[in-house]
Amino acid sequence: MQITFERASSEDLSIIVKMLSNDPLGSTREGSSENNKTYLSAFNHIEQDPNNEIIVAKVNNNVAGVLQLTYIPSLTYQGSWRAQIEGVRVSNEFRGQGIGGKMISWSIERAKQRGCKIVQLTSDKRRPDAIRFYQQHGFHSTHEGMKLHFD
Amino acid sequence: MQITFERASSEDLSIIVKMLSNDPLGSTREGSSENNKTYLSAFNHIEQDPNNEIIVAKVNNNVAGVLQLTYIPSLTYQGSWRAQIEGVRVSNEFRGQGIGGKMISWSIERAKQRGCKIVQLTSDKRRPDAIRFYQQHGFHSTHEGMKLHFD
Repeated sequence: MQITFERASSEDLSIIVKMLSNDPLGSTREGSSENNKTYLSAFNHIEQDPNNEIIVAKVNNNVAGVLQLTYIPSLTYQGSWRAQIEGVRVSNEFRGQGIGGKMISWSIERAKQRGCKIVQLTSDKRRPDAIRFYQQHGFHSTHEGMKLHFD
Repeated sequence: MQITFERASSEDLSIIVKMLSNDPLGSTREGSSENNKTYLSAFNHIEQDPNNEIIVAKVNNNVAGVLQLTYIPSLTYQGSWRAQIEGVRVSNEFRGQGIGGKMISWSIERAKQRGCKIVQLTSDKRRPDAIRFYQQHGFHSTHEGMKLHFD
Protein backbone atom coordinates (compact mmCIF):
# COMPACT_ATOMS: atom_id res chain seq x y z
CA MET A 1 0.00 0.00 0.00
CA GLN A 2 1.40 3.36 -1.01
CA ILE A 3 0.34 6.24 1.17
CA THR A 4 1.12 9.87 0.44
CA PHE A 5 0.59 13.02 2.48
CA GLU A 6 -0.24 16.46 1.18
CA ARG A 7 -1.99 19.67 2.11
CA ALA A 8 -5.69 19.32 1.36
CA SER A 9 -7.09 21.24 -1.58
CA SER A 10 -10.59 22.68 -1.69
CA GLU A 11 -11.52 19.71 -3.91
CA ASP A 12 -10.92 17.43 -0.92
CA LEU A 13 -13.27 19.40 1.36
CA SER A 14 -16.38 17.40 0.50
CA ILE A 15 -14.87 14.08 1.54
CA ILE A 16 -13.20 15.65 4.59
CA VAL A 17 -16.54 16.92 5.88
CA LYS A 18 -18.03 13.46 5.31
CA MET A 19 -15.24 11.94 7.42
CA LEU A 20 -15.80 14.46 10.21
CA SER A 21 -19.52 13.67 10.23
CA ASN A 22 -19.16 9.91 9.91
CA ASP A 23 -18.02 9.46 13.50
CA PRO A 24 -19.89 8.61 16.72
CA LEU A 25 -19.17 12.04 18.26
CA GLY A 26 -18.89 14.01 15.02
CA SER A 27 -22.33 12.93 13.79
CA THR A 28 -23.97 15.00 16.55
CA ARG A 29 -22.12 18.20 15.77
CA GLU A 30 -21.05 18.29 12.12
CA GLY A 31 -22.98 19.26 8.99
CA SER A 32 -23.55 17.01 6.04
CA SER A 33 -22.40 19.16 3.19
CA GLU A 34 -19.20 20.77 2.03
CA ASN A 35 -21.39 23.59 0.73
CA ASN A 36 -21.87 24.75 4.28
CA LYS A 37 -20.31 28.20 4.19
CA THR A 38 -18.67 27.86 7.59
CA TYR A 39 -16.55 24.86 6.47
CA LEU A 40 -15.42 26.70 3.36
CA SER A 41 -14.66 29.84 5.33
CA ALA A 42 -12.61 27.88 7.89
CA PHE A 43 -10.83 26.02 5.10
CA ASN A 44 -9.86 29.29 3.44
CA HIS A 45 -8.56 30.75 6.71
CA ILE A 46 -6.49 27.62 7.33
CA GLU A 47 -5.13 27.59 3.78
CA GLN A 48 -3.96 31.20 4.09
CA ASP A 49 -2.35 30.72 7.50
CA PRO A 50 1.28 29.53 7.41
CA ASN A 51 0.80 28.08 10.91
CA ASN A 52 -2.17 25.88 10.04
CA GLU A 53 -2.40 22.91 7.68
CA ILE A 54 -5.10 20.41 6.78
CA ILE A 55 -3.21 17.27 5.80
CA VAL A 56 -4.80 14.45 3.83
CA ALA A 57 -3.42 10.93 3.59
CA LYS A 58 -4.06 9.46 0.15
CA VAL A 59 -4.00 5.83 -0.96
CA ASN A 60 -4.01 5.38 -4.73
CA ASN A 61 -5.05 9.02 -4.99
CA ASN A 62 -8.10 8.48 -2.75
CA VAL A 63 -8.43 10.46 0.47
CA ALA A 64 -8.07 7.91 3.27
CA GLY A 65 -7.54 10.18 6.27
CA VAL A 66 -7.35 13.77 7.45
CA LEU A 67 -5.96 15.81 10.32
CA GLN A 68 -5.17 19.42 11.13
CA LEU A 69 -1.79 20.66 12.29
CA THR A 70 -1.39 24.00 14.05
CA TYR A 71 2.09 25.36 14.78
CA ILE A 72 2.06 27.57 17.87
CA PRO A 73 4.91 29.86 18.91
CA SER A 74 4.95 29.74 22.73
CA LEU A 75 6.88 31.51 25.46
CA THR A 76 6.80 28.45 27.72
CA TYR A 77 9.58 25.85 27.56
CA GLN A 78 12.04 28.64 26.84
CA GLY A 79 10.18 29.94 23.84
CA SER A 80 9.40 26.65 22.10
CA TRP A 81 7.18 26.07 19.12
CA ARG A 82 4.50 23.44 19.60
CA ALA A 83 2.62 21.42 17.00
CA GLN A 84 -0.99 20.65 17.80
CA ILE A 85 -2.97 17.87 16.14
CA GLU A 86 -6.74 18.15 15.80
CA GLY A 87 -9.58 16.50 13.89
CA VAL A 88 -7.91 13.16 13.15
CA ARG A 89 -10.13 10.90 11.05
CA VAL A 90 -9.62 7.79 8.91
CA SER A 91 -12.26 6.98 6.31
CA ASN A 92 -14.37 3.88 7.07
CA GLU A 93 -13.17 2.06 3.94
CA PHE A 94 -9.55 2.43 4.97
CA ARG A 95 -9.73 1.39 8.63
CA GLY A 96 -7.60 -1.43 10.07
CA GLN A 97 -4.69 -0.83 7.69
CA GLY A 98 -2.46 1.17 10.01
CA ILE A 99 -3.21 4.45 8.23
CA GLY A 100 -3.91 6.34 11.46
CA GLY A 101 -0.53 5.34 12.84
CA LYS A 102 1.23 6.44 9.66
CA MET A 103 -0.58 9.78 9.84
CA ILE A 104 0.59 10.36 13.42
CA SER A 105 4.18 9.30 12.66
CA TRP A 106 4.21 11.61 9.64
CA SER A 107 2.86 14.48 11.76
CA ILE A 108 5.53 13.95 14.40
CA GLU A 109 8.23 14.14 11.72
CA ARG A 110 6.60 17.22 10.22
CA ALA A 111 6.59 18.87 13.66
CA LYS A 112 10.32 18.16 14.03
CA GLN A 113 11.00 19.66 10.59
CA ARG A 114 9.11 22.78 11.66
CA GLY A 115 11.35 23.08 14.72
CA CYS A 116 8.71 22.17 17.29
CA LYS A 117 9.77 20.80 20.68
CA ILE A 118 6.36 19.47 21.68
CA VAL A 119 3.53 17.75 19.84
CA GLN A 120 0.21 17.93 21.64
CA LEU A 121 -3.41 16.98 21.20
CA THR A 122 -6.52 16.38 23.25
CA SER A 123 -8.64 13.27 22.92
CA ASP A 124 -12.22 12.98 24.17
CA LYS A 125 -12.38 10.72 27.24
CA ARG A 126 -15.25 8.89 25.51
CA ARG A 127 -12.68 7.56 23.01
CA PRO A 128 -10.57 5.17 25.15
CA ASP A 129 -9.29 3.36 22.03
CA ALA A 130 -8.01 6.64 20.61
CA ILE A 131 -6.29 7.51 23.88
CA ARG A 132 -4.53 4.12 23.90
CA PHE A 133 -3.58 4.62 20.26
CA TYR A 134 -1.89 7.95 21.03
CA GLN A 135 -0.14 6.46 24.06
CA GLN A 136 1.24 3.75 21.78
CA HIS A 137 2.65 6.53 19.61
CA GLY A 138 4.53 8.13 22.49
CA PHE A 139 2.02 10.60 23.88
CA HIS A 140 1.61 10.91 27.66
CA SER A 141 -1.74 11.75 29.30
CA THR A 142 -0.21 14.33 31.61
CA HIS A 143 -2.89 17.01 31.30
CA GLU A 144 -6.59 17.58 31.70
CA GLY A 145 -8.06 18.79 28.40
CA MET A 146 -10.62 21.42 29.38
CA LYS A 147 -13.23 22.96 27.08
CA LEU A 148 -15.80 25.71 27.35
CA HIS A 149 -18.39 25.83 24.57
CA PHE A 150 -20.42 28.95 23.82
CA ASP A 151 -24.06 28.36 22.97
CA MET B 1 -8.16 47.68 42.53
CA GLN B 2 -8.04 48.72 38.91
CA ILE B 3 -6.92 46.02 36.53
CA THR B 4 -6.24 46.59 32.85
CA PHE B 5 -5.46 44.16 30.04
CA GLU B 6 -3.23 44.78 27.07
CA ARG B 7 -0.97 43.02 24.60
CA ALA B 8 2.46 42.60 26.14
CA SER B 9 5.28 44.75 24.80
CA SER B 10 8.89 43.61 24.59
CA GLU B 11 9.53 45.73 27.71
CA ASP B 12 7.29 43.33 29.64
CA LEU B 13 9.25 40.25 28.55
CA SER B 14 11.69 40.29 31.47
CA ILE B 15 8.97 40.11 34.11
CA ILE B 16 6.97 37.60 32.07
CA VAL B 17 9.92 35.19 31.95
CA LYS B 18 10.36 35.63 35.71
CA MET B 19 6.71 34.67 36.22
CA LEU B 20 7.07 31.59 34.01
CA SER B 21 10.15 30.50 35.98
CA ASN B 22 8.75 31.29 39.41
CA ASP B 23 6.41 28.33 39.43
CA PRO B 24 6.74 24.78 40.84
CA LEU B 25 6.66 23.20 37.37
CA GLY B 26 8.08 26.12 35.42
CA SER B 27 11.22 26.33 37.56
CA THR B 28 12.41 22.99 36.15
CA ARG B 29 12.04 23.98 32.52
CA GLU B 30 12.32 27.75 32.10
CA GLY B 31 15.36 30.00 31.82
CA SER B 32 16.16 32.83 34.16
CA SER B 33 16.71 35.67 31.75
CA GLU B 34 14.74 37.60 29.21
CA ASN B 35 17.97 37.88 27.24
CA ASN B 36 17.65 34.26 26.29
CA LYS B 37 17.35 34.48 22.52
CA THR B 38 14.67 31.80 22.32
CA TYR B 39 12.22 33.81 24.46
CA LEU B 40 12.79 36.91 22.36
CA SER B 41 12.44 34.97 19.14
CA ALA B 42 9.17 33.40 20.31
CA PHE B 43 7.92 36.78 21.49
CA ASN B 44 8.60 38.31 18.08
CA HIS B 45 6.83 35.47 16.27
CA ILE B 46 3.82 35.86 18.55
CA GLU B 47 3.75 39.63 18.14
CA GLN B 48 3.75 39.33 14.34
CA ASP B 49 1.03 36.66 14.25
CA PRO B 50 -2.55 38.01 14.19
CA ASN B 51 -3.72 34.70 15.70
CA ASN B 52 -1.47 34.84 18.76
CA GLU B 53 -1.43 37.30 21.65
CA ILE B 54 0.51 37.54 24.89
CA ILE B 55 -1.83 39.40 27.25
CA VAL B 56 -0.64 41.06 30.45
CA ALA B 57 -2.90 42.07 33.32
CA LYS B 58 -1.67 45.29 34.94
CA VAL B 59 -2.48 46.71 38.36
CA ASN B 60 -1.37 50.34 38.78
CA ASN B 61 0.76 49.88 35.69
CA ASN B 62 2.59 46.87 37.19
CA VAL B 63 2.46 43.51 35.42
CA ALA B 64 0.41 41.24 37.70
CA GLY B 65 -0.34 38.35 35.36
CA VAL B 66 0.22 36.92 31.90
CA LEU B 67 -1.33 34.43 29.51
CA GLN B 68 -1.17 33.53 25.84
CA LEU B 69 -4.18 33.36 23.56
CA THR B 70 -4.07 31.47 20.25
CA TYR B 71 -6.99 31.73 17.82
CA ILE B 72 -7.29 28.58 15.74
CA PRO B 73 -9.46 28.24 12.63
CA SER B 74 -10.78 24.66 12.70
CA LEU B 75 -12.84 22.49 10.39
CA THR B 76 -14.45 20.65 13.31
CA TYR B 77 -17.70 21.93 14.85
CA GLN B 78 -18.80 23.09 11.41
CA GLY B 79 -15.75 25.21 10.80
CA SER B 80 -15.51 26.95 14.17
CA TRP B 81 -12.74 29.15 15.47
CA ARG B 82 -11.31 28.12 18.83
CA ALA B 83 -9.42 30.20 21.36
CA GLN B 84 -6.70 28.41 23.28
CA ILE B 85 -5.27 29.65 26.57
CA GLU B 86 -1.70 28.78 27.54
CA GLY B 87 0.95 29.84 30.04
CA VAL B 88 -1.33 31.43 32.65
CA ARG B 89 0.64 32.94 35.53
CA VAL B 90 -0.10 35.45 38.30
CA SER B 91 2.86 37.15 39.94
CA ASN B 92 3.52 36.10 43.56
CA GLU B 93 2.92 39.63 44.89
CA PHE B 94 -0.53 39.74 43.35
CA ARG B 95 -1.90 36.34 44.37
CA GLY B 96 -5.13 35.93 46.32
CA GLN B 97 -6.76 39.02 44.82
CA GLY B 98 -8.89 37.34 42.19
CA ILE B 99 -6.63 38.44 39.34
CA GLY B 100 -6.47 34.97 37.77
CA GLY B 101 -10.25 34.84 37.61
CA LYS B 102 -10.44 38.26 35.99
CA MET B 103 -7.83 37.18 33.44
CA ILE B 104 -9.87 34.12 32.49
CA SER B 105 -13.15 36.06 32.32
CA TRP B 106 -11.48 38.68 30.13
CA SER B 107 -10.07 35.96 27.87
CA ILE B 108 -13.48 34.35 27.47
CA GLU B 109 -14.97 37.70 26.42
CA ARG B 110 -12.07 38.29 24.04
CA ALA B 111 -12.66 34.86 22.49
CA LYS B 112 -16.33 35.76 21.93
CA GLN B 113 -15.35 39.05 20.29
CA ARG B 114 -13.03 37.14 17.98
CA GLY B 115 -15.94 34.90 16.93
CA CYS B 116 -14.72 31.75 18.65
CA LYS B 117 -17.20 29.02 19.59
CA ILE B 118 -14.91 27.15 21.96
CA VAL B 119 -12.31 28.19 24.52
CA GLN B 120 -9.89 25.44 25.44
CA LEU B 121 -6.81 24.81 27.53
CA THR B 122 -4.89 21.98 29.10
CA SER B 123 -3.87 21.95 32.74
CA ASP B 124 -1.17 19.69 34.18
CA LYS B 125 -2.74 16.98 36.36
CA ARG B 126 -0.19 17.90 39.04
CA ARG B 127 -2.07 21.19 39.46
CA PRO B 128 -5.40 20.11 41.01
CA ASP B 129 -6.08 23.63 42.31
CA ALA B 130 -5.73 25.03 38.79
CA ILE B 131 -8.07 22.39 37.40
CA ARG B 132 -10.70 23.27 40.03
CA PHE B 133 -10.21 26.95 39.25
CA TYR B 134 -10.92 26.41 35.56
CA GLN B 135 -13.94 24.24 36.38
CA GLN B 136 -15.28 27.10 38.49
CA HIS B 137 -14.95 29.30 35.41
CA GLY B 138 -17.09 27.01 33.26
CA PHE B 139 -14.52 24.64 31.76
CA HIS B 140 -15.30 20.92 31.59
CA SER B 141 -12.60 18.23 31.88
CA THR B 142 -13.90 16.26 28.93
CA HIS B 143 -10.58 15.44 27.27
CA GLU B 144 -7.22 13.86 27.94
CA GLY B 145 -4.47 16.40 27.32
CA MET B 146 -1.69 14.39 25.66
CA LYS B 147 1.87 15.60 25.08
CA LEU B 148 4.92 14.25 23.31
CA HIS B 149 8.19 16.05 24.06
CA PHE B 150 11.23 15.79 21.79
CA ASP B 151 14.57 15.53 23.55
